[in-house]
Amino acid sequence: MKAAILSVGTELLFGQITNTNTVYLSQQLNMLGFDVMYHYTVGDNPERVADMMNLAFEDCDMVLTTGGLGPTQDDLTKEVACKVLGDQLVMMDDVWEEITRYFRTLGRELTENNKKQAIMPSRATVFHNDAGTAPGFALEKDGKYIVCMPGPPREMTRMFEKSVLPFLQKLSEEVIYYRLIRTFGLGESSMETDLLDLIDNQTDPTLATYAKEGECSLRIASKRKTKEEAKRAVDEMLEQVKERIGKYIYSCDDEELVQVVCKKLMDQNLTISSAESCTGGLFAAALTDVPGISQCFQRGLVTYSNEAKMEELGVRKETLDKYGAVSEETALEMVEGLKKVSGSDVCISVTGVAGPDGGTEEKPVGLVYIGFLYGDKKLCKKVRMRNINRKWNRHYSLLSMLDVINKNL
Amino acid sequence: MKAAILSVGTELLFGQITNTNTVYLSQQLNMLGFDVMYHYTVGDNPERVADMMNLAFEDCDMVLTTGGLGPTQDDLTKEVACKVLGDQLVMMDDVWEEITRYFRTLGRELTENNKKQAIMPSRATVFHNDAGTAPGFALEKDGKYIVCMPGPPREMTRMFEKSVLPFLQKLSEEVIYYRLIRTFGLGESSMETDLLDLIDNQTDPTLATYAKEGECSLRIASKRKTKEEAKRAVDEMLEQVKERIGKYIYSCDDEELVQVVCKKLMDQNLTISSAESCTGGLFAAALTDVPGISQCFQRGLVTYSNEAKMEELGVRKETLDKYGAVSEETALEMVEGLKKVSGSDVCISVTGVAGPDGGTEEKPVGLVYIGFLYGDKKLCKKVRMRNINRKWNRHYSLLSMLDVINKNL
Repeated sequence: MKAAILSVGTELLFGQITNTNTVYLSQQLNMLGFDVMYHYTVGDNPERVADMMNLAFEDCDMVLTTGGLGPTQDDLTKEVACKVLGDQLVMMDDVWEEITRYFRTLGRELTENNKKQAIMPSRATVFHNDAGTAPGFALEKDGKYIVCMPGPPREMTRMFEKSVLPFLQKLSEEVIYYRLIRTFGLGESSMETDLLDLIDNQTDPTLATYAKEGECSLRIASKRKTKEEAKRAVDEMLEQVKERIGKYIYSCDDEELVQVVCKKLMDQNLTISSAESCTGGLFAAALTDVPGISQCFQRGLVTYSNEAKMEELGVRKETLDKYGAVSEETALEMVEGLKKVSGSDVCISVTGVAGPDGGTEEKPVGLVYIGFLYGDKKLCKKVRMRNINRKWNRHYSLLSMLDVINKNL
Repeated sequence: MKAAILSVGTELLFGQITNTNTVYLSQQLNMLGFDVMYHYTVGDNPERVADMMNLAFEDCDMVLTTGGLGPTQDDLTKEVACKVLGDQLVMMDDVWEEITRYFRTLGRELTENNKKQAIMPSRATVFHNDAGTAPGFALEKDGKYIVCMPGPPREMTRMFEKSVLPFLQKLSEEVIYYRLIRTFGLGESSMETDLLDLIDNQTDPTLATYAKEGECSLRIASKRKTKEEAKRAVDEMLEQVKERIGKYIYSCDDEELVQVVCKKLMDQNLTISSAESCTGGLFAAALTDVPGISQCFQRGLVTYSNEAKMEELGVRKETLDKYGAVSEETALEMVEGLKKVSGSDVCISVTGVAGPDGGTEEKPVGLVYIGFLYGDKKLCKKVRMRNINRKWNRHYSLLSMLDVINKNL
């Protein structure tokens, strides 16, 4: 099936936001076996939206739109879809009830323009929006489909996963099965070099590498008549991949490193506490983002100042004076102090230079020490990362902390 | 002048890369006073590239392309541009010399297909590429322009700044000036209702609302002969907007709330510490993401367990037993305890139900209490948000904390 993705929104044409919806939808549609032929973006202008839909239907079977479903006057996608595929808008009572309920929960007042969001094409398959007010829908005529989703990425992706994906799967003849292998500590070009012959010889399964925020992932995908066939082909290829780069792999199912770590902690019923300097709470925030972690995570101390390190963790003044706040000695005293105050099974500390300032020749921006304590095991890992920017340095420090825990539990 | 941006590259249709070129070009063109009417993306297919160019010229004066200028067989943009605007490719000796020199500097060997990059439309204005081998160019016929640039963002942006921008400036007659007004606590439909007559009557300046991750923004833009005129028109409109929704505005210059708060803290030379429960370190992580904040941020305590609340902050067991961890009483004892241990000028605490579990009828998921202490000022703000998901609830809690600080400093 051939598809076009149409983004509606003047803010995109102004360059105010990056079009991540299109990237997401392209990936999803390709995985479903759709051929994505075009991306279009137009402003909130009904004629132009209609023109692009008609153009797409010259050689596509489906147009997926994002945006233009809101309550305001310039949100016109629904009207246009009706015009292009011959339907009429009708008030849908159940949709209106849902919107009313949404506002009641929020304690917000309904405005007259919200009513517009309960009006839908009469033949539409309606998609519930559980992260906002604007429902989505699919409309079909003579084998041509228009699928409309809201513009805010959070609303769109949730609606896609919950409602649109199952809808599209029914339309597709072949099944794509894939696994996303996630690694830490391996660059994209190294991964490609290690897997070069496998990548070069690929027909099915296909292999594709993706670099993303300090990590590198590998997608192994197969398109076959049945899911079982595709799954078998992917799993055989995965075995070959594991022989080459197994030690870097932390998940074969697209889990994030933080999820893998939290799962280990919860499964082994271990308590954990953290003492952070350069990451400033990122580690605690990442861990506590995982539902159910409150049984394990006890406390997080963000000891940014030297006073906080001494008072909260009992780091000695002499240590700070002699070796500095960013040192193996300080990282270890932090984690030892943390063990004393928290009594947690697993304790982890971090201290480093996040930048942009504060680096020296001896201790450059990007130098980080991670202290770790678990049972008899006590260690300090020194990480020297390439200084890209403060945000990235902090993010990479967080990943390194998670990696230390993952490898030592 | 009306313009369309055409991105050429199959990798975009696969969703392998995010189209940042289009964002960059849209911003630049809008600032030059161009109307960006369309974004198109097609694969490396000459017919489709030509189709999109012809389509764009139905109502645009210019098509700017990125990609498809490389040395390989599927790089066909130049040929297509010649076909669409009636020209022929010729070998340009000076371009060839430049490419030869580039390879010599790099110590790389020239391959036969590099010659292709020195062949240009005979009437082209050639744009030098000082970050790669593929030159760009502009081609004109009867007031219609095709401007072609390479795909790699680094090459494209450098070429744009150095060569394309001056070329375009000569063609443009008007200037756009705009401001992005950021608010917290106001939904998009309420904002529109409050500003309806201003939005309805808009010709210039124009007003547009955007919802994004719990916040709502407003863009006020004006297009005039000079920047000064445009700026005056925008600032006058801003005054009217302020009269309506002033109390929700936290920035008139597209700053994030966390930046606004950190700037206040740094400007007033205030120290700050935080005690977090449901946000689990998000607040500390957000603050410490801002460079230079180490002079203000002293410590962050993530007191997730009741024990941690008692031991680190001196919250009384009776308070926890009688009112619960999620209560005004606990939030206030947390912030009072924090003041004692940290001595910071500004102290903030948060406790709430982030979900997905743990909610009750009395204390549902999405209920949050924020404690705040600064000088004589002590308060507790109760926030009842719609439970969307754990991530969002935590994010909205963070924004609410920042909002409390911003409004009380």
